[in-house]
Amino acid sequence: MFFIKRALVLPRRSVCVLKWSKLAYSTNIPIEDLDLEFKGLDGISKCTIQSIEGPEPVYLKLKENMYKSFHYENKFTFKLGGVLPEIKLAYETWGHLNEKKDNAILLFTGLSANSHAKRNANNLQPGWWEDFIGEKMAIDTEKFYVICVNHLGSCFGSSGPYSISPITKKPYATTFPIITVDDMVKAQFLLLDHLGVDRLHASVGSSLGGMCSLLSGLKYPLRVSKVIAISTCARAEPSSIAMRYLQRKAIMLDPKWNNGFYYDQKEHPINGLRLAREIATVTYRSGPEWKERFGRKKMSDTEPITLCPSFEIENYLNHQGETFSTKYDPNSLLYLSKAMDLFDLAEGCDSMVDALQHLKCPVLIMGSQTDILFPVKQQRDLSKWIKEAGNSQVSYFEMDSLYGHDTFLLNLNDVGTALKGFLETKLNKTGEISKSKKK
Amino acid sequence: MFFIKRALVLPRRSVCVLKWSKLAYSTNIPIEDLDLEFKGLDGISKCTIQSIEGPEPVYLKLKENMYKSFHYENKFTFKLGGVLPEIKLAYETWGHLNEKKDNAILLFTGLSANSHAKRNANNLQPGWWEDFIGEKMAIDTEKFYVICVNHLGSCFGSSGPYSISPITKKPYATTFPIITVDDMVKAQFLLLDHLGVDRLHASVGSSLGGMCSLLSGLKYPLRVSKVIAISTCARAEPSSIAMRYLQRKAIMLDPKWNNGFYYDQKEHPINGLRLAREIATVTYRSGPEWKERFGRKKMSDTEPITLCPSFEIENYLNHQGETFSTKYDPNSLLYLSKAMDLFDLAEGCDSMVDALQHLKCPVLIMGSQTDILFPVKQQRDLSKWIKEAGNSQVSYFEMDSLYGHDTFLLNLNDVGTALKGFLETKLNKTGEISKSKKK
Repeated sequence: MFFIKRALVLPRRSVCVLKWSKLAYSTNIPIEDLDLEFKGLDGISKCTIQSIEGPEPVYLKLKENMYKSFHYENKFTFKLGGVLPEIKLAYETWGHLNEKKDNAILLFTGLSANSHAKRNANNLQPGWWEDFIGEKMAIDTEKFYVICVNHLGSCFGSSGPYSISPITKKPYATTFPIITVDDMVKAQFLLLDHLGVDRLHASVGSSLGGMCSLLSGLKYPLRVSKVIAISTCARAEPSSIAMRYLQRKAIMLDPKWNNGFYYDQKEHPINGLRLAREIATVTYRSGPEWKERFGRKKMSDTEPITLCPSFEIENYLNHQGETFSTKYDPNSLLYLSKAMDLFDLAEGCDSMVDALQHLKCPVLIMGSQTDILFPVKQQRDLSKWIKEAGNSQVSYFEMDSLYGHDTFLLNLNDVGTALKGFLETKLNKTGEISKSKKK
Repeated sequence: MFFIKRALVLPRRSVCVLKWSKLAYSTNIPIEDLDLEFKGLDGISKCTIQSIEGPEPVYLKLKENMYKSFHYENKFTFKLGGVLPEIKLAYETWGHLNEKKDNAILLFTGLSANSHAKRNANNLQPGWWEDFIGEKMAIDTEKFYVICVNHLGSCFGSSGPYSISPITKKPYATTFPIITVDDMVKAQFLLLDHLGVDRLHASVGSSLGGMCSLLSGLKYPLRVSKVIAISTCARAEPSSIAMRYLQRKAIMLDPKWNNGFYYDQKEHPINGLRLAREIATVTYRSGPEWKERFGRKKMSDTEPITLCPSFEIENYLNHQGETFSTKYDPNSLLYLSKAMDLFDLAEGCDSMVDALQHLKCPVLIMGSQTDILFPVKQQRDLSKWIKEAGNSQVSYFEMDSLYGHDTFLLNLNDVGTALKGFLETKLNKTGEISKSKKK
């Protein structure tokens, strides 16, 4: 055999290549023994690509005693058209509102989170910012009254596509109006009115929540004293829109999506939602993290390689899709991800700097250098534009965290420290210390 | 209305915010006029998410006179198991093989390309490297005999899952053996044997082709004089595996995939392939390119916003999926993308540097700084490791191209210049000029 000859003339020290050449070329099976059942599909059952009829989705059986509910019994008009006869918002609070009602912090969530940022008496499960909120913690509940609301359009107690319309007595499904970040913020300020909070100590948010936080400061300059916006942007860029579009397409291609009218079907578009979440997960973490965490580790060293997942990274993504798929409403993902695409603070203005002239309070901007979804340049630009617009109270941090976009959920050292410092510092002067005082 | 009041207390120069606040809050429709047919689905027909029964896929009706065919009528054994009774390889050539048969360049393609790198008498369509190959061009056909082969496992004339098994008389589909880069390279060297080419002037390739080119130099050190590897890596990293896994999952979730046995079905898994190609496209280009090219341009300024695509970037991705979907065999994508995941030059060796000791000829490594799929650090590492392994003839370039991974297809200035210089330079000395001769 020609190739074996070639392999043999390799220099002696080439042990590794020789081993591998033998593996490749040693077989010499007679034609009649050819195995016609080849390897492509062995173990296909492990692909978990079948449609699985899961348990009832969590959002359809949320326990109402786990959160507070604000029922706004008036019409709610959406920015892009459409009016709902009423809306409900699920929310949770920590700490106590003081007498002057000036110690409230409004914490906006990302796309997929609910109002449960921290455990409380009604729900002892740890929240998504469990270690950031509490007595003496980054957001100190001895000092502040923290409010976290499930976004309008989401599926954890607030009005969304899965909600029953009081008029038709059926879920809105895709007759729900298109939501914008403006609508989400407006709804949460209706809750603030209800709570008697005229002016926030701060609005805080990351990702979609960061968009909301920025918009709050810009739109309600008299009601927001400080703005914190982490891993977010001034406007959605096409690379982020692309990744969200792929997620929406994955859901809408699932035959069970049925144009959004699946709530009375036996099966929901779980497969589409799984794939959407797996695509999202790629944008939430980072290559360097995966290299360190998984490298090229295989799921099994003994199972034959097939077209099905072989590597730990695939298993991880698959698992992320699985665990999300019964917890979130696919239609909510469509609506909220679209709202993120539509976000542009400069809408209607001549320039971003022009728009940001309305953001006059102190602002904290942070970002992660490994973020793929909201690359750190977007936070750098944001900070630069706010300063250019004349705001001399901008704090800006870049984090070298491995965790990509999810840094805001995981990096207690950096995010926590900056949060606490920014929330609790009283600035006597603004901006840089005058140069003339320097040595 | 409370919010209008708030808006009105904004300072006078806030023209843009006022405009926008009015838009958001001016509606005051009586409850009986509420529009219950909301916006989520208007224009859904434009989503092109329906299953479209397309024309017959191109790969099933390829004209055989457009390429040369090498029929290897012996058993072909695959590295990971499985034997085919025979294989065919489609290939094209440009220029003339000289008498000594030492002027051949083997050009390995990426995952999705066919053998048509350049127009020729049998096929006047421009090829995928049309402007890189030709008389006096980067790969000079007056000097070199260029061979480009459709990869084993692909669908443009070479044996792949769509091929009819001479034993069962049916397409192999997913009974086709799992393919590795080793198998692809081995098959192409069988063709070189057939052509009487004992030693290549150079192996050249980008992406998957770069993997093949590196492996050729490493595996057949006596048959390859120079190696060019562009936008590729020494081993597949988990971030790249993740993106390819998502593409495979998109195909395998399509109900029409039918475990790969769709060739006699009326409809192929076109929707899955479309989504897979859209996911791939995100990894082939770059955010900075899209920002410059599309920004936040909408598909229409007059159509209402729905859950369907609104932005030009979405339209672009959709178009990429569409045009690819009838040209490529979904099963080929599964097999070739898996082969890329499995690629690891250090397999069976103690370290990458150990493995690369066998790559003794001059090597040119290039990469693009905006590549997401094969980040430039991978080419930097590759170049570093080859040098560490003792090779003093490594040329390494980073390109600041906007085009991400696809730079190798588009950047004639940088890629072309480096190619020509590397292919045509005769090195009298190797490595750095001795320091003692410097001033």
